[in-house]
Amino acid sequence: MSYTKGKQVCIVGSGNWGSVIAKIVGCNVQKLDKFDNRVTMYVYEEMINGKKLTEIINEQHENVKYLPGHKLPANVEAIADVVEAAKDADILIFVLPHQFIKGICSTLLGKIKPTAIALSLIKGFDRLEGGGIELISHIIHRHLKIPCHVLMGANLANEVANEQFCETTIGCRDRKIGAMLRDIIQTEYFRVVVVDDADTVEICGALKNIVACGAGFVDGLGLGDNTKAAVIRLGLMEMIKFVDVFYPGGKLSTFFESCGVADLITTCFGGRNRKCSEAFVKTGKSIKQLEDELLNGQKLQGPITAEEVHFMLKSKGMEDKFPIFTTVHKICTGELKPQDFVSCIREHPEHIYIPRHIAFT
Amino acid sequence: MSYTKGKQVCIVGSGNWGSVIAKIVGCNVQKLDKFDNRVTMYVYEEMINGKKLTEIINEQHENVKYLPGHKLPANVEAIADVVEAAKDADILIFVLPHQFIKGICSTLLGKIKPTAIALSLIKGFDRLEGGGIELISHIIHRHLKIPCHVLMGANLANEVANEQFCETTIGCRDRKIGAMLRDIIQTEYFRVVVVDDADTVEICGALKNIVACGAGFVDGLGLGDNTKAAVIRLGLMEMIKFVDVFYPGGKLSTFFESCGVADLITTCFGGRNRKCSEAFVKTGKSIKQLEDELLNGQKLQGPITAEEVHFMLKSKGMEDKFPIFTTVHKICTGELKPQDFVSCIREHPEHIYIPRHIAFT
Repeated sequence: MSYTKGKQVCIVGSGNWGSVIAKIVGCNVQKLDKFDNRVTMYVYEEMINGKKLTEIINEQHENVKYLPGHKLPANVEAIADVVEAAKDADILIFVLPHQFIKGICSTLLGKIKPTAIALSLIKGFDRLEGGGIELISHIIHRHLKIPCHVLMGANLANEVANEQFCETTIGCRDRKIGAMLRDIIQTEYFRVVVVDDADTVEICGALKNIVACGAGFVDGLGLGDNTKAAVIRLGLMEMIKFVDVFYPGGKLSTFFESCGVADLITTCFGGRNRKCSEAFVKTGKSIKQLEDELLNGQKLQGPITAEEVHFMLKSKGMEDKFPIFTTVHKICTGELKPQDFVSCIREHPEHIYIPRHIAFT
Repeated sequence: MSYTKGKQVCIVGSGNWGSVIAKIVGCNVQKLDKFDNRVTMYVYEEMINGKKLTEIINEQHENVKYLPGHKLPANVEAIADVVEAAKDADILIFVLPHQFIKGICSTLLGKIKPTAIALSLIKGFDRLEGGGIELISHIIHRHLKIPCHVLMGANLANEVANEQFCETTIGCRDRKIGAMLRDIIQTEYFRVVVVDDADTVEICGALKNIVACGAGFVDGLGLGDNTKAAVIRLGLMEMIKFVDVFYPGGKLSTFFESCGVADLITTCFGGRNRKCSEAFVKTGKSIKQLEDELLNGQKLQGPITAEEVHFMLKSKGMEDKFPIFTTVHKICTGELKPQDFVSCIREHPEHIYIPRHIAFT
């Protein structure tokens, strides 16, 4: 293996999606002179049958826990110390559960190259202490003082691992950097579109999970395809309105990218938020119970995001402007019954006037 | 039943969708003074077990052939003579297979009120004799010399008949008339949004069936949710581009209405174009064979529309700008294999540049 002096990439995270991205990036850097062949991957150390996960990955070139059955390229090196993994990197790809991001940033502060850039694949918001929400890419930028771009799309991890054709969206403010990020991510089966509207890309990735809960309620109630399409559409309109109100300057065209309508569709038909929300209606169990039973105790993203968004909407007196977001939250907490869902959206503001949102440029 | 002097509505057509609309309109006019209680419905006469279909409908208030199990309001009157049904109407709602529209218009010419207006629920295009395509609403307008508005949306007929919540879109240039049309169509479970961009609304209703064929191919090939979402998204981008190129002045916001993204989703997951296209890949049978076997010989709309669109794109040298539309057509005709579908869209123009389409107003 030849080690060039090109830019070095570090993958911060090694779950299912992180391992898929490591496979793609590991292959791509080998073909392009401008990147260093070595790709580091921060792996939270675990013991698997008495052996360290980092050792298994580095010897067998397979993440047997989170992406079994898929070989990683040999130039991907698993490292249990995040500082060690990241210290020489020019590009840091963050792909780990969002509750760990602040801790990781604290650990990395001052230990990375000051010229490094970040790419976040993390979906979700963080709560701002004074109220409201903060985007994960903004947290990374604020803590590490480096630019942070984002990647989101209709990308169920296992299908990407199987090299089934799909698209993704990179949100990046700098065209030159966008082209470089595309080069390390794009393959024959994983097509990248770069847009400059990074905040909208990231917000789509978080809000779609709320809409997917609504789609799951519709499925659980035994309503039809028409109703589900209406919920998806109205959810999309609330996503657009959310950007318009809270992150003005976003572009309508971004919602037509893979991170927008395509990811929303995939999440509302496949996806575990939909599935658990359907079970929520059919079984009458709580979200917490379903997380324990269906997700091994992992948190479902949709209800958390709905709660964060509701907290913000309530503080601004805008609950009734976002009836899908508001009603999903109130159903998840038991304040409303799933059976109330349709009557809550029957008089949706989108039915009253012709929507005029974001300037399309 | 009291007969006021309000506006009279005639439903021209009595198939599955026409009967559902007759049910809705028949109920609504009874509640509103500005409409005549009597709703006429043109029914193509058929004998059902030795009895005329019009007689069955007028006696039993049920279209036992096309919408069995649902009662029509008693003020809906079935009439086998289209001139008789339409002659006093102020509002003509056209809802019949599009191959019959020119014949019906010829029959009605000079026999209707000159002040009447039309609302078309017909999906599809017509071939222009000199080449290209013509919208059905334009045909009605041209032949009958009355304004023609349109209604399209994510409206699988049986679900609407079951009164499951959904939305629809009316495309209408005149706000006052739009409000009146909404009044005769909207119910608690069937929500109407009126937009002024009628051509775009109608084009969405036709083009979505081509995309649904592509979605069916993806299903038939056993590809995943990511791939299907990519095909739906790229199909939507081609729909937008089609309007931009051939019907300039359309609005991007219209694609976010029920007639746009919602109807596209419903059609690409439910819908017979998707279903037959999946069977096309899995069985290797021709479209014609599948129409005979699965649709009682009825024509599938997607392949016809794909052929019309391809004819137009080819004559303008624009096939490669619309790879989904072009490839669906070539697969339907056997010129390409379903297995070629993904490689044909891999280098889609949407992956090359950031799309900048229609001015959003």
